[in-house]
Amino acid sequence: MTGKPNILFIMADQLRWDYLGFAGHPHIKTPNLDRLAASGVTFTRAFVQSPVCGGSRMCTYSGRYNVTHGATYNNFPLRVDEKTIGDYLRPLGYRAVLVGKTHFKPDLESLARLGIDPGTNPGLPYLQCGFEAYERDDGLHPEVDGKLAGADPHYNNWLRQLGYTGDNPWHTWANSVEGDNGEVLSGWSMRNAHRPARVREEHSETAYMTDRAIEFMQRSAGGAPWCLHVSYIKPHWPYIAPAPYHAMYDSAHVVPANRNEAERQAPHPVIAAFMRHEESVNFSRDEVRARVIPTYMGLISQFDHHVGRLVAHLEQSGEIANTIIVVTSDHGDYLGDHWLGEKDLFHEEIVRVPLIVVDPRPEAAATRGRRLDALVEAVDLAPTFLGWAGGDPEPHRLEGASIEPLLAGELPPTWRSAVFCDSDFSLRHARKFLGLDVDEARGFMVRTERWKYVYFERFRPQLFDLASDPGELSDLGGSAAHAAVMAEMKDRLFQWLLHRKTRVTVTHDYIRRVTGGAKARGYRFGEW
Amino acid sequence: MTGKPNILFIMADQLRWDYLGFAGHPHIKTPNLDRLAASGVTFTRAFVQSPVCGGSRMCTYSGRYNVTHGATYNNFPLRVDEKTIGDYLRPLGYRAVLVGKTHFKPDLESLARLGIDPGTNPGLPYLQCGFEAYERDDGLHPEVDGKLAGADPHYNNWLRQLGYTGDNPWHTWANSVEGDNGEVLSGWSMRNAHRPARVREEHSETAYMTDRAIEFMQRSAGGAPWCLHVSYIKPHWPYIAPAPYHAMYDSAHVVPANRNEAERQAPHPVIAAFMRHEESVNFSRDEVRARVIPTYMGLISQFDHHVGRLVAHLEQSGEIANTIIVVTSDHGDYLGDHWLGEKDLFHEEIVRVPLIVVDPRPEAAATRGRRLDALVEAVDLAPTFLGWAGGDPEPHRLEGASIEPLLAGELPPTWRSAVFCDSDFSLRHARKFLGLDVDEARGFMVRTERWKYVYFERFRPQLFDLASDPGELSDLGGSAAHAAVMAEMKDRLFQWLLHRKTRVTVTHDYIRRVTGGAKARGYRFGEW
Repeated sequence: MTGKPNILFIMADQLRWDYLGFAGHPHIKTPNLDRLAASGVTFTRAFVQSPVCGGSRMCTYSGRYNVTHGATYNNFPLRVDEKTIGDYLRPLGYRAVLVGKTHFKPDLESLARLGIDPGTNPGLPYLQCGFEAYERDDGLHPEVDGKLAGADPHYNNWLRQLGYTGDNPWHTWANSVEGDNGEVLSGWSMRNAHRPARVREEHSETAYMTDRAIEFMQRSAGGAPWCLHVSYIKPHWPYIAPAPYHAMYDSAHVVPANRNEAERQAPHPVIAAFMRHEESVNFSRDEVRARVIPTYMGLISQFDHHVGRLVAHLEQSGEIANTIIVVTSDHGDYLGDHWLGEKDLFHEEIVRVPLIVVDPRPEAAATRGRRLDALVEAVDLAPTFLGWAGGDPEPHRLEGASIEPLLAGELPPTWRSAVFCDSDFSLRHARKFLGLDVDEARGFMVRTERWKYVYFERFRPQLFDLASDPGELSDLGGSAAHAAVMAEMKDRLFQWLLHRKTRVTVTHDYIRRVTGGAKARGYRFGEW
Repeated sequence: MTGKPNILFIMADQLRWDYLGFAGHPHIKTPNLDRLAASGVTFTRAFVQSPVCGGSRMCTYSGRYNVTHGATYNNFPLRVDEKTIGDYLRPLGYRAVLVGKTHFKPDLESLARLGIDPGTNPGLPYLQCGFEAYERDDGLHPEVDGKLAGADPHYNNWLRQLGYTGDNPWHTWANSVEGDNGEVLSGWSMRNAHRPARVREEHSETAYMTDRAIEFMQRSAGGAPWCLHVSYIKPHWPYIAPAPYHAMYDSAHVVPANRNEAERQAPHPVIAAFMRHEESVNFSRDEVRARVIPTYMGLISQFDHHVGRLVAHLEQSGEIANTIIVVTSDHGDYLGDHWLGEKDLFHEEIVRVPLIVVDPRPEAAATRGRRLDALVEAVDLAPTFLGWAGGDPEPHRLEGASIEPLLAGELPPTWRSAVFCDSDFSLRHARKFLGLDVDEARGFMVRTERWKYVYFERFRPQLFDLASDPGELSDLGGSAAHAAVMAEMKDRLFQWLLHRKTRVTVTHDYIRRVTGGAKARGYRFGEW
C-alpha cells in the first residue's frame, strides 16, 4: 500500500446497536456487516453525542459535543466557523465527498452579515457541511398539502426518468405502497409497513445512494485520496422496504420489548411526557411492533446488502487494500422499548450505536477480528480520520480522541472513563407537556462502565446501575441510597461542562509558543 | 426629544472602580464624572466578565460571557459569527461608531475558509468589531528592536504633522519623557512615571481621541441616531501623563495598599504564581507605588477632563437632551494591592468597575442621582443598548440582562443574585510556574452580595466573606467550616456553565413557533 488511505465512512440512520447479526440479534441477517466485523474491529460500547439526527451528525462531523457546537437539533444551523471532517481532510490533499444525508443547514443570518450570498458561492464547502457534495440528499422529502415541500432531490428526478411519475416519487413510489385494491397508501402510516414499496429494490434510496457511491469511487480511481461519506437514510422512517426485504421477517422474528410495568406506572416526569407522544403510544402496542419491526429489520438487511456491494467494488478495484472502512449510525430507535417510540432520550437503545472499523494496514493487525469494549464516542471519528490522513491534531477544537491507539491494540492510560451525550428537546411536544421554556428542555447524560446518570433541568436526575440492570428498567434517580454516586456523576458533568472547547480561534501551539512572551513583542509592562 | 436616543458609550482602560471622586477616593479629582454621577445613576456593584482587556471587551461588546464567546484573552480572535453592539444596533437604523480601542482581532483562518479576503472587504463590520471605525486605535504601539511593530496608527501620523518626529512618536513622544539631562527615557520604565510626557496635553492620546469623537458628533449632527464608542487607552500603562497631570498628585495622595502580611506568607498557589511576576514584585515596593500611582491618578483626572469636553459638546449642540451617556471601564489595576500588579485575577480591585448611566429621558427620572447596588455585569450593556434602540431582545445570544428596569427604579424579582467572571491566564508566566497545560490555566469567579468564590483548575478554590472582609484579605478557601458555602457556590457555577448560550443559530421565537410542528411540515412520524 502506498500513500494515504482512503476512508469509506458509511452511516446508517436510526440503526440500533443491537439489530445486527454480529451484535447478537437472534434473527436478523447482516452477513456483510458480520464479515466486516470479523475482519476489523467492533466497538461494543460506542455512543453518539446527541440522541437525534441533526445534533448527532453535527457532533460526528465536527468532532465536538452537542452543547459545544450548538446545532443541537434537526435543522438547527451549524455555525459558520465550525470545521467538519471535510475541512480537516481537505488541506491534507483529500477529497472529502458526500453521498447522502448530513442534515446540515447553513447559518444564513451569519453568512449575510459576512456578505456571503449562498447562491453565488455554490462551491463553498461550508454550504455542504464541509464536504464536496457528489450526491446530497437529506433523505426526507415530505409533502405539505399534497405538494413536495423543499427542493426536489436528484433521486426524484432519477425515479421520474425510470418512469415513476409525479411531483414527488420519493413519497408516492419509494415510500408508498399499494393497498389490497391497488390504491396508493402512504408509508407515513405505520399500518402499511408490511407492504412492499412501490419501487423495485434496485430503485430504492439505499440502492441509489450505493450506485452513486460506487460511481464516485470508479471516477476517482487513481486520483487524490478520498474520504467518502456514504450516508443512508434507512432504516429511518418511513418504515417502508422494497421487495423482497419487506417480507424477509415477520412477527416471529420480533424480539420482546425491553420494558416493564413499573416503568409505565411511575415514570420520570420527562419520560412520562415523551410517553404521551403519538409514536410512543403507538409503539407501546404489540400490533404496531409486530407490523413495523420486521420492516425495520428488512431495511437493515437491505442496508447490509448494499454495504456488501460497496465492499465488493473495493475488492474488485483493488482499493480495498488502501481503504479504511468505518460503519456506524447516528442513533437508535426505541421501537417501543421503555414504552417509547423514536429517540431524543438516553437509553442504550438510542445512544449506543454500532461501530465497525476495518483498517487493512499493518498498524491495525493486532486487533483484527476483535471486539473492544473501551468507551468510545462518535466525536472520536473526526480526530481519528485526521490522524489517518497524517494531519496535526487540533486539540483546541476537537473534543474527541483518536481511536488509533485502540486499533493498534493499546488502551492509553488516560482513556476516558465516561461518555457524554446531551439532548435538546425544545422542539418536541414534551417540552410543552412539562411546562419548560425553550432553553430548559435539555438533558445531559454521563455514562461510565457501570452507571448511567441523566441530568434534567427542573427535574430529578435519572440513574441506572448497568451492572445489575443492563436493560435500564429500574431508575434509581430518586434513591437516597445512591446520593453519593449521583454526586460523583454530577461532578463529572461539571468537569465536562468546564472543558468545552469554546476557545476555537487560537491553537494550543500558539499559546505554548507565546506564553510569557509579551516583552519580546514590545509590551514592557511591569518594568521599573 | 424625538426619535431614538444617541448613545455615548465611554470606556476607560484599566480604571478601577474606587479611583473616582464620587466613589469616595479621598484625593482624586474627577469633577466631570462626579457631575455625571449626580445627574444619572451610579452602579456601585458593576462587574466585568474577564479580568483582562481583550476578554472583557469581547464580553461587553458581544453581551456574552468570556467562556461562551471564547476570545478569552488579548489578541484571541473573536469568532466570525459573534455579534457585537454594532451588529445589534445597525439594523435598527443606528450608526455604531468606534473612536479608540476595542482590542478586537479577526479570525483570519475562518475568514479564509469562507473565501473572505479582509484586504478586499475593508467595509465588513466584522473586521472592526462590528463597528464603523471612525478612528480605530488599540492604544498600544510597542517597538521591537527599536522599530514600530504593527501598523502605524493615525495618531502617529497626526503627531508627525505637529512636528513630533520619528518612526513611532506614540512611544518616543507621547509615552516617553526627558531625563535630567534632556535625554529621552521610555515610559515603559515605571521609574519614569513622575516625569511629564514629551507631548503637550492637547496632543496626548486622550485629547486626540476626544477631538476625533467631537468631530464625529459634529459631522453626524442631524443624521441617523448613533452609538459612539469612545474608548480611551488611559489610564492603562505606560503610566505616563502629560503636564500638568503628571504633577497633579504626589505620594501624599497615594492611599495605603490593600494588603497584609498573611496574604504574602500563605498565598493560594495561583496567587503565589502571579506574585512572582515582575509587575507584582515591583508594585509590592512602596517606592513604585509612590512613583506610579500619582501618575495613574493624573491620567484619571485627565480622562475626567476630556469626558467633560464630550459632555460640553453635547450641551452646546443641544444633543444632550437626546443622548444617553454611559461611562465604564474594562477592568481595574492591582497597583500593589494584595502584593500584585496588573490584572488577570478576581479581587474587587480588578473585576469591579465604575458604571455611570445618564439617561435624559423621562423613563429614567425616578433614579436620577441615585446609587444602585444591584449586581450588574458588563454583559448587560449590549442588551440595554438594544432595548434603548427599540430592538427585539435576542435571548438566544445575549447573556446579559437589560438594566432598563433598574434605571426606571424597578428591581425585577428575578434579577441575578450573583455575578460571574472567568479568566484564561494561559499566556502568562504564572501558567508555567504552576505547571499547567494550556487549557488548565483558568479561574471562574462567582460573587454574590456576601461571598466571592473562585474555582481554579487543579487547585483549591478561594472564598472571601465580603461582609466581614470587604478587602478580601482572608481567603477561606481552605476552611472546612465553609464547605457548605463553597458547595453552594460551586453549584451556582455548575448552573451557570450549564446555561451558556451556544445555541446561537436559532431564535427562541423560532423554537416557540415550530415546537411540535413537525407534522405540519409533513414529517408524519409515529402515525399508525
